[in-house]
Amino acid sequence: MLSPKETTSEAAVLRANASFYRAFTHADYAAMCQLWAQHAPVACLHPGASMLVGRGPVLDAWRQIMTGPEPLVMRCDHPNVHMLGDCAIVTCHEGNAEHPAHLIATNVFVLEDGHWRMVHHQAGPLARVVPRPAPVAASN
Amino acid sequence: MLSPKETTSEAAVLRANASFYRAFTHADYAAMCQLWAQHAPVACLHPGASMLVGRGPVLDAWRQIMTGPEPLVMRCDHPNVHMLGDCAIVTCHEGNAEHPAHLIATNVFVLEDGHWRMVHHQAGPLARVVPRPAPVAASN
Repeated sequence: MLSPKETTSEAAVLRANASFYRAFTHADYAAMCQLWAQHAPVACLHPGASMLVGRGPVLDAWRQIMTGPEPLVMRCDHPNVHMLGDCAIVTCHEGNAEHPAHLIATNVFVLEDGHWRMVHHQAGPLARVVPRPAPVAASN
Repeated sequence: MLSPKETTSEAAVLRANASFYRAFTHADYAAMCQLWAQHAPVACLHPGASMLVGRGPVLDAWRQIMTGPEPLVMRCDHPNVHMLGDCAIVTCHEGNAEHPAHLIATNVFVLEDGHWRMVHHQAGPLARVVPRPAPVAASN
């Protein structure tokens, strides 16, 4: 069972994870730069691509993705957080816009200067797509 | 630049990473059980599969893989370590036996009871296969 401090950290990690998908979807390169760690070593493994190591190559690739001809509206479904002290791993499914999720992802964050910042992202194909979760009904 | 302590930790993480591929290749289920964290939360994302969360499901899947009809001789090429305090991320390519690498992987370890233990594994397809590195020539 998580302590109150861990629960708070878990919520903060989920907010950082949500800000990653928001930056992605809105092609907000500045937000993406702010999210990735400034000091800790970083790496990014896009689906079916080569390994990117270091802040420069990782952010260059994000800029290319964000300025590409087909903007991606990337959704994160079923995020699951594992707290490991000042490090946290989020696993989730990823889907484009309203389509079923077709990717599964690992997002790793570290606590840096009081903020949860991304140090690692890997996404790869799911064996079969997973329908988008039903939206939670508003309670009057 | 890494401190001497970090260099030692990096070597220990690489040994833990190598023991993962050794356990995999030798279908050594006991070694695999020993490698995965006992206390920290764990997850495993096999290529094209669903998410496995928790020591029970993760190790059950490894037992199924290891007792399957086609044993896998899994090789780890170009491991790269990022130290994050008591947490470490290894990225590498994976290939079967002598074949070119066809997968890219993220392996996360935490320092638990003085040992680097695995808490997370994701492997997914590379865009194109990567030839096996040439063996290092023996000196003399």
